[in-house]
Amino acid sequence: MAMALNDSVSANAMTLDSLRDSLIRQEDTIIFALIERARFPTNSPAYDHSYAKFPGYSGSLVQFVVRETEALLAKAGKFTNPEEHPFSPNDLPPSEAPPYNFTKVLHPAAASININKSIWNMYFDKLLALFTTPGDDGNYASTAASDLVCLQALSRRIHYGKFVAEVKFRESPREYEPAIRSQDRDALMKLLTVESVEELVKKRVAKKAMVFGQEVTLDDNNAKKGKCKVDPSVVSRLYAEWVMPLTKVVQVEYLLRRLD
Amino acid sequence: MAMALNDSVSANAMTLDSLRDSLIRQEDTIIFALIERARFPTNSPAYDHSYAKFPGYSGSLVQFVVRETEALLAKAGKFTNPEEHPFSPNDLPPSEAPPYNFTKVLHPAAASININKSIWNMYFDKLLALFTTPGDDGNYASTAASDLVCLQALSRRIHYGKFVAEVKFRESPREYEPAIRSQDRDALMKLLTVESVEELVKKRVAKKAMVFGQEVTLDDNNAKKGKCKVDPSVVSRLYAEWVMPLTKVVQVEYLLRRLD
Repeated sequence: MAMALNDSVSANAMTLDSLRDSLIRQEDTIIFALIERARFPTNSPAYDHSYAKFPGYSGSLVQFVVRETEALLAKAGKFTNPEEHPFSPNDLPPSEAPPYNFTKVLHPAAASININKSIWNMYFDKLLALFTTPGDDGNYASTAASDLVCLQALSRRIHYGKFVAEVKFRESPREYEPAIRSQDRDALMKLLTVESVEELVKKRVAKKAMVFGQEVTLDDNNAKKGKCKVDPSVVSRLYAEWVMPLTKVVQVEYLLRRLD
Repeated sequence: MAMALNDSVSANAMTLDSLRDSLIRQEDTIIFALIERARFPTNSPAYDHSYAKFPGYSGSLVQFVVRETEALLAKAGKFTNPEEHPFSPNDLPPSEAPPYNFTKVLHPAAASININKSIWNMYFDKLLALFTTPGDDGNYASTAASDLVCLQALSRRIHYGKFVAEVKFRESPREYEPAIRSQDRDALMKLLTVESVEELVKKRVAKKAMVFGQEVTLDDNNAKKGKCKVDPSVVSRLYAEWVMPLTKVVQVEYLLRRLD
């Protein structure tokens, strides 16, 4: 229960049920983040490498905002928590905060798994155009900060696959060991896929997008008539095409190294 | 309509109705931010001046995160938009982004009004304990980043009072001029207070906290049974005791300078 409230992993309480509670809570976080990004139009100058020149940087405004934000949060200790994964892992400064004793749950090989490059490409090349409206209101810095909130929420959710894989492995090691020993990705992927659960998740996130994206008014007759702030079918597709498949990629990568 | 969608002010479309749409949309932003901060327990080390020492800083971890984040967003142009107000206005670096032509709506005196110190004190000294659970999960950097999202949302909403005051003044200058000329704060405060509207706002934000903070499940019988993620009565109180009164302080300060 503490887990669902605090949205953080405790080794003692870690079961498939408690992980499931956290994954469900993270759906809300992702949908809130998308709704908040959708306040702004596309704002393409934020992604244009030739738009702004920041001293010492050659990329876009959003790359500048992500790298600088991650650098300062790294100093404040963010990435000492194994649940967090940076988008700009190279040249991150060390933490200046006192070390915190995060519970060690994962196999040490987990630290080498970071698929944020795939998440970054998915977000900017595919997802963004599906839930923002074309236009330009000049709020590029706020837009980039909103993008980072979306990216971090998606990254955290997808890399939670490490914890899910660990708990599944602990609960029935014999089921996974043969495929791990033979390094059989396809067999692992098959073991990790439960289509009926994936269908439920797709439906639930669409419903959440409808509930959280509605215009709430005191007059109940007026409620729910307006357009949702983010199209529920886009959120469903985000989970079906990207979040769940990428989570399984993380799980497979983790399990392949689980007996190292 | 573009305003409600994009949550930004356009001088041409600016009417009390369009401002109202933006204020209503900003309620959602504030409530999402509070719900997301409530994922973490209080995490008091983030606010303890003796907990961490950052080179060149003497304050708390949250002060470090706010100052550094605002500095990088200032470089990316965030505070060139008159809707945005920094919490650490001293020593902010200049924007490195090309200038954007934000529509000029406000009297130039608006630039001197920034009540973020009051908002900061209200948030950390009063509000935070009302909607977070005691505890410590080590996620101080993420907690501080969540605090900043709350602070920015509250600041933006409260300083929108400048635009509200400007439109009210333009719609009926003769109503406001005598009190402005005599610099009569009390008379201005009385002109700006509509208790029936304030009651509606308090009810609406409580309802939104209930809708956005519920646990959404596919089984409708199960829905809404759980505790809200943020107590609706706290959100109602936030608006009644702080957001609406502070917005009126901004309006009064703005009107007092409107004829300068």
